[in-house]
Amino acid sequence: MLKFDEQKQINSVNGGLALRGEIEKVVDEIQEKGFDGIYFIGIGGTWASSLQAEVYMRGRSALPVYVENAAEFITTGNKRFTKDSIVIFSSVTGNTEEMVKAVEKAKEIGAKVFGFVDKAEAEIVKLCDWCISYPENEQLKFYMTANRLMYNNGEFPEYDRYNKEMEEHLAEALVNVEKKADAWAAEYAKEVYAYVKANPDMPHYFVGSGNQWGATYSYAMCYWEEQLWIRTKSITCAEFFHGMLEVVEAETPVTLFMGEDSQRPLAERVAGFLPKVCKNYVVIDSKDYELEGISTEFRGSLSHLVMHAVNNRVDAHLEDEFKHPMVIRRYYRQFEY
Amino acid sequence: MLKFDEQKQINSVNGGLALRGEIEKVVDEIQEKGFDGIYFIGIGGTWASSLQAEVYMRGRSALPVYVENAAEFITTGNKRFTKDSIVIFSSVTGNTEEMVKAVEKAKEIGAKVFGFVDKAEAEIVKLCDWCISYPENEQLKFYMTANRLMYNNGEFPEYDRYNKEMEEHLAEALVNVEKKADAWAAEYAKEVYAYVKANPDMPHYFVGSGNQWGATYSYAMCYWEEQLWIRTKSITCAEFFHGMLEVVEAETPVTLFMGEDSQRPLAERVAGFLPKVCKNYVVIDSKDYELEGISTEFRGSLSHLVMHAVNNRVDAHLEDEFKHPMVIRRYYRQFEY
Repeated sequence: MLKFDEQKQINSVNGGLALRGEIEKVVDEIQEKGFDGIYFIGIGGTWASSLQAEVYMRGRSALPVYVENAAEFITTGNKRFTKDSIVIFSSVTGNTEEMVKAVEKAKEIGAKVFGFVDKAEAEIVKLCDWCISYPENEQLKFYMTANRLMYNNGEFPEYDRYNKEMEEHLAEALVNVEKKADAWAAEYAKEVYAYVKANPDMPHYFVGSGNQWGATYSYAMCYWEEQLWIRTKSITCAEFFHGMLEVVEAETPVTLFMGEDSQRPLAERVAGFLPKVCKNYVVIDSKDYELEGISTEFRGSLSHLVMHAVNNRVDAHLEDEFKHPMVIRRYYRQFEY
Repeated sequence: MLKFDEQKQINSVNGGLALRGEIEKVVDEIQEKGFDGIYFIGIGGTWASSLQAEVYMRGRSALPVYVENAAEFITTGNKRFTKDSIVIFSSVTGNTEEMVKAVEKAKEIGAKVFGFVDKAEAEIVKLCDWCISYPENEQLKFYMTANRLMYNNGEFPEYDRYNKEMEEHLAEALVNVEKKADAWAAEYAKEVYAYVKANPDMPHYFVGSGNQWGATYSYAMCYWEEQLWIRTKSITCAEFFHGMLEVVEAETPVTLFMGEDSQRPLAERVAGFLPKVCKNYVVIDSKDYELEGISTEFRGSLSHLVMHAVNNRVDAHLEDEFKHPMVIRRYYRQFEY
């Protein structure tokens, strides 16, 4: 399989899950001391991951948990954000301009900051009250944090059973998703390449909701647009019906991300609508992928990870089809702007 | 001027402003009784207006004010939403499916509902604890509500002066924006028509932030996509730099909405970047429009209304250029889905 190191991926996820003790220690301390609000702050892909953590908790937890976009936080700010507030953020490099300024502003206000910064030597680490440095697995780290917050708040009684299943089976299950998706992904990438070459202006439409919305938004923008320079538009399943539907015709390329969380019914509505007006759509449904050893009731909390695993395979094949190394940038960080 | 009835528009805005007494009575009652959260709930265009009200208050008010998308509220729900919560919503028809279900759910939980429903005879009016029925001016109604909430919370000391200026000058000022924008809008509509006919697949990119974000999002989706069937993508100024920028080339059509609120610096960054990579961009800046009788300090709170006035003229000319009556729908409410 192209760009696939099974053992490395298993180790990566298991290493992420092994952060649990550290994460629990930080979260327990946060909740023991008390707070008036927890703000997941991000920009671009890390904002998308923040949205996933928030929507996951919104339906399950009475804790005051919110999302802020870093650039909005440093301009508009938030009057409800105080010295008793908590920031949670994730950053690979630790030097994204908006993120640095947002954390600086939070610290000036007197809030406490919990960072996941891949590079332990980044300057931003010094601003954190707590920091865990471990590569990748951002969504997993956020959900592990969310799970502990809810457990401590009496909203996650199945916490131990959940973690046991994750620690025993998740890494293997996600690798198996990649393996299962690979042949389909190779075919899909070929089709996308042919379509884009024939229709270079046409945006590819991505639709998704719930914890798939962060996946949909960031996949369209941070992968296809930023890393592959392919036009996209992303929209939630709910909002799809309030405007965007009108520009879908028989040949319009649409990909629907379906998950298994509380917003699945919204995706089902899109899945029911599309065949009536379009014949160039694709549905990627996390439900089609077995997650051995993981209970059905927990699958909704993993839908975005399943989608990420599927899309890892799509990316590998798109990069090859388009002969476009995903690391190159046309403008981003290439000059001052 | 095409589709322009000056006196009717002046009367419409002044009629909206004249609701102040009614709005104040409702808001005062809400704040006297107390609440644990105020939720602007909407879907599509009304969700976009809700986002505008929320971002307006976020930087100025410590009140717990949030936005919910109606479809997400009826699926995922919100555990922080209780019998002590308040819903504020707006609807023209009062029969949008998601909105009806969201209000029903809020009432089941025991929350209080304040509706602006244009059609006084709509069923949803019966579910409201308070309802004001007056046509159009949704954003004005929301901001008037927001202003009173902040005034009562000691966060809007200039309230009386603000309202005096609005009531004396806003309607006339907005009509003058339309008049000033008309010649430009006619030219722009011609260019858009020529571009779209030559490049039917290419999406038109709209970028905006702050209270312009609701305007950007809903203008792209509810006007161009839904009413004119033109492809669009909308993105905030902040997020533009985290992916979307990479697909902008010399001929890519981009329109930037600039306002005068706290997020203007984010739009200025886009305005500085675009000329370096693109020669097919347009900037619509609320600052270019005089608002006679209105103090500079209040202009930020009106930027989205100025943009709406400019876009009214664009719409009138686009409808004529494309020979596409904006009332027709391809799919929306045309069949069961």
